[in-house]
Amino acid sequence: MTFADTRFEDRRRRLGNEIAAQRLDYLLLTHLENIRYFSGFSGSNAALLIGKDRSAQICTDGRYTTQIAQEVPDIEAIIDRPSAAALLKRVEDTARVGVEASHLSLAEFDNLKSVAGENVTLVPVEKLIEPIREVKDEQELAELERVAAIAVDAFEALVADNGIRAGRTEREVAADLEYRMRLNGSERVSFDTIVASGPNSAKPHHSASDREIVEGDLVTIDFGAHSAGYNSDMTRTVIVGKVGETERKIYETVLRAQLAGVEAARAGMSLAEVDATCRDIIAEAGFGEYFTHSTGHGIGLDVHEAPFAARGAEGTLREGMTLTIEPGIYIPDVGGVRIEDTLVITSGDPRVITPVSKDLLIV
Amino acid sequence: MTFADTRFEDRRRRLGNEIAAQRLDYLLLTHLENIRYFSGFSGSNAALLIGKDRSAQICTDGRYTTQIAQEVPDIEAIIDRPSAAALLKRVEDTARVGVEASHLSLAEFDNLKSVAGENVTLVPVEKLIEPIREVKDEQELAELERVAAIAVDAFEALVADNGIRAGRTEREVAADLEYRMRLNGSERVSFDTIVASGPNSAKPHHSASDREIVEGDLVTIDFGAHSAGYNSDMTRTVIVGKVGETERKIYETVLRAQLAGVEAARAGMSLAEVDATCRDIIAEAGFGEYFTHSTGHGIGLDVHEAPFAARGAEGTLREGMTLTIEPGIYIPDVGGVRIEDTLVITSGDPRVITPVSKDLLIV
Repeated sequence: MTFADTRFEDRRRRLGNEIAAQRLDYLLLTHLENIRYFSGFSGSNAALLIGKDRSAQICTDGRYTTQIAQEVPDIEAIIDRPSAAALLKRVEDTARVGVEASHLSLAEFDNLKSVAGENVTLVPVEKLIEPIREVKDEQELAELERVAAIAVDAFEALVADNGIRAGRTEREVAADLEYRMRLNGSERVSFDTIVASGPNSAKPHHSASDREIVEGDLVTIDFGAHSAGYNSDMTRTVIVGKVGETERKIYETVLRAQLAGVEAARAGMSLAEVDATCRDIIAEAGFGEYFTHSTGHGIGLDVHEAPFAARGAEGTLREGMTLTIEPGIYIPDVGGVRIEDTLVITSGDPRVITPVSKDLLIV
Repeated sequence: MTFADTRFEDRRRRLGNEIAAQRLDYLLLTHLENIRYFSGFSGSNAALLIGKDRSAQICTDGRYTTQIAQEVPDIEAIIDRPSAAALLKRVEDTARVGVEASHLSLAEFDNLKSVAGENVTLVPVEKLIEPIREVKDEQELAELERVAAIAVDAFEALVADNGIRAGRTEREVAADLEYRMRLNGSERVSFDTIVASGPNSAKPHHSASDREIVEGDLVTIDFGAHSAGYNSDMTRTVIVGKVGETERKIYETVLRAQLAGVEAARAGMSLAEVDATCRDIIAEAGFGEYFTHSTGHGIGLDVHEAPFAARGAEGTLREGMTLTIEPGIYIPDVGGVRIEDTLVITSGDPRVITPVSKDLLIV
């Protein structure tokens, strides 16, 4: 596996250049998803020290002695805890060491300061890693497609087996879907499954309650699988039994907005424009006030990560980014619809990695 | 519900006294479990400002307008984001405001400093809340018993239905158990389910792989449910088919240690002594080097919270605390056993809220 062997080294090389550009000697990583990205280590406790010369040392505790040897054969591993402090003690006394400002608590920072050498300078840094991580490499895209397929297959089987039906509770539907994803290889849900039926569908952040689904309900299902560190995220809204006129109109509006958003999402497009594409269609249909969240987000080792397509967002889509497109309309006491896909951005049409039909589905 | 009405107010009164004792004017809470503890709010974004006079203001974003009115009828709610900054802007210009050092990132702290009034002082504080939360009140104990019962019932049904058997993969067993917990009312797992069979049972932090269980395997299952904010945690090790002599000896040693630990865990006992009680029995049996973790931890809104029973731990058990007792022996290439219960501490025998049989179970 020469390919896999150099993946983490390649990423560390890019980070080493950033570290040097920031006039730091080292970056001390403490966010587990970042550690996994630059080393391959999947344990629940670790720290990773990267040098401007691309040197690397990793530290974890005794529970992971075997695992770290297997997962990270190419970095010197130290077994000690607390891990970040143990690595910091090993830097030379005049070093400038960056720490992750968004992922280090005040208490942890104080503790690091107390163990650092007298002339070591700790420098909180931000947005050094996001620009590297937001463009995915081939292996990451393969993982993302694999985990998306786990979720897609589970959902399609759930529908085929009539798993979404009147008489079932939201919780039963969620349990059924999660069980299918688990058997397909998901290690856990990537976030709490949403099964929002009837009036609950008007709450964008409902989870899954004991409410029994009844005829005429809109049922919004927003769910994701997690495997090998990567996450999936998609949403479909189905209608149970029969469709009311309002429900149909909401559905068609959200679908038009979502399809336009997918079409707009290509390299070079600004994130604010992608958001506006969806938002304008919903506003023109008279539902503007009911689209209460942003249009989409990147997904990878974190479920929500850069880039973000929102009103006033800065930045532009690039090839190899991921983005969800998930417009919604939520009318209190009536119901709501959200349709969400995850895309891989290319120079042309995006690759939709959650290719479940979006035709209005009456179950 | 007069009872429920005063619960959060009572907790805030205790915290208000602590805030005054620290010569602070306010404490700005940002850890969601702490916000839930002092207000009842269960959303995924919020901040809570408590005054030394026990005044309270809570802030969340527009997704939760309806939910916060229902869950927190007794506190003024502000809809804005970012929530912590919005609350901080409302304090008078000379206030001393405590922030949660263990739960606030450097970046968030910097942002708060930038919005705070010129003469507002932000004071990172630690261990103000832990002493309040580590002793559970009656409603909390009821929630903890309820969520523990969800997990207990699921495990007993799994065993009764022959769900742990040769030919099944670890993942299938985990999926089955999780599905049962979900249908019993669990909202999610409280941590990734561990199903560690055969050689994997020697890894205390294995999760659940595609390994197929075979005759003669030790299978360690460590799992928890989550409901209404509270978590459960328990472990049983079963043997599939037939028992080897070594496996039996390990099992009996861990069981003796675990029973002694449970017996020792009562109000007034030091946490270090509880740990030593288990550890000494395992060491005397010649397995000391294979018990590689600490004996137990408190559980509540967080899965791992104070108190901690470990080598050299400080502090003493008090009535109303929770504690897991979970000694284990892990022999590389042979296998491992862990037995874990969750206890409620009393002045006499602890109440075991995970009362599943600990007799050696051959499935």
